[in-house]
Amino acid sequence: MSSSMSLFSQMGYEAASVAQICEQAGVSKGAFYHHFPSKQDVFLAILEEWLQGVDDQLSLARLKDEAVPQSLLRMADTIGGIFQVASGQLPMFMEFMVQASRDQAVWNAAIAPYRRYQQRFAAIISEGQREGSICPEVNAQTTAWVLISLAVGILLQGVVDPEAADWQGVTARGVELVLNSIKTEK
Amino acid sequence: MSSSMSLFSQMGYEAASVAQICEQAGVSKGAFYHHFPSKQDVFLAILEEWLQGVDDQLSLARLKDEAVPQSLLRMADTIGGIFQVASGQLPMFMEFMVQASRDQAVWNAAIAPYRRYQQRFAAIISEGQREGSICPEVNAQTTAWVLISLAVGILLQGVVDPEAADWQGVTARGVELVLNSIKTEK
Repeated sequence: MSSSMSLFSQMGYEAASVAQICEQAGVSKGAFYHHFPSKQDVFLAILEEWLQGVDDQLSLARLKDEAVPQSLLRMADTIGGIFQVASGQLPMFMEFMVQASRDQAVWNAAIAPYRRYQQRFAAIISEGQREGSICPEVNAQTTAWVLISLAVGILLQGVVDPEAADWQGVTARGVELVLNSIKTEK
Repeated sequence: MSSSMSLFSQMGYEAASVAQICEQAGVSKGAFYHHFPSKQDVFLAILEEWLQGVDDQLSLARLKDEAVPQSLLRMADTIGGIFQVASGQLPMFMEFMVQASRDQAVWNAAIAPYRRYQQRFAAIISEGQREGSICPEVNAQTTAWVLISLAVGILLQGVVDPEAADWQGVTARGVELVLNSIKTEK
């Protein structure tokens, strides 16, 4: 899978052919089509694998017995690792999305994961309300979208324009600003 | 210019040829190349025109004698209008960015405008500090990047997945959460 990813990165998503993906991975075309009906499926599998890595990092950041605000700040610190993986992949990712935009099923598959992250953050905020660290009147769903939007915006800018700002610092400060408004201990 | 934009939207950035752009706009190829050395230049001009519209909306939202926190909330309300223009343009925009990523000069021209927005928001926050509505210890630069990141993330998601959330509501709430942490009157 990682060999396909480096092929996509080097050649671009459109230019990389299934024949080349097979050659690089050392598999026959028959074996390829058995696992992946199309090139889009390889890409979605790579995306899923990458997102699983993000999931793992986020899970590690959520320490047992730690209050939710501290966990969220710790999660903000993991964004540096996400940048490292995402850096250089943007053109390929955009090429894929251009193609995906012409196919509703692929498009839905591509955008499903980030809805999952919103659900996850909404659950963490609700947990904070149960433990008493987050104000009860806070809307967990909307606040989760605010955090996801912040992360999406920072990731996009960090990849498009890495030198413009200290993106790790912007992430930490952004989460802190949101937290200061929603936590019970001020 | 708007005829080129609808051509790009309908056909995609790559598929639209200079010949078709000229035909739709009713100009000769000679006149076209006089104004725009390449197709990328037409696109950058369209982008610039669109951003000028965003600038105008933001300027209208900044009322004279209004305190900065209120102005920022009012600016958050203008995002609905930005969605209307941006909706449906994403695939074309991504196609352009894929091409731009292969040409450093075009890439720099494409990302320059959003650095300008960050400067603008940093200036507004500093103004709030001078008038006493924003805490003096707030870092205007970092806070401006947080606001820009939030806007970029919301715009991207709003275009990619319009039904996932009430994006106008997420914008208003996001700006409010940040403001609650930085304003002097709590």
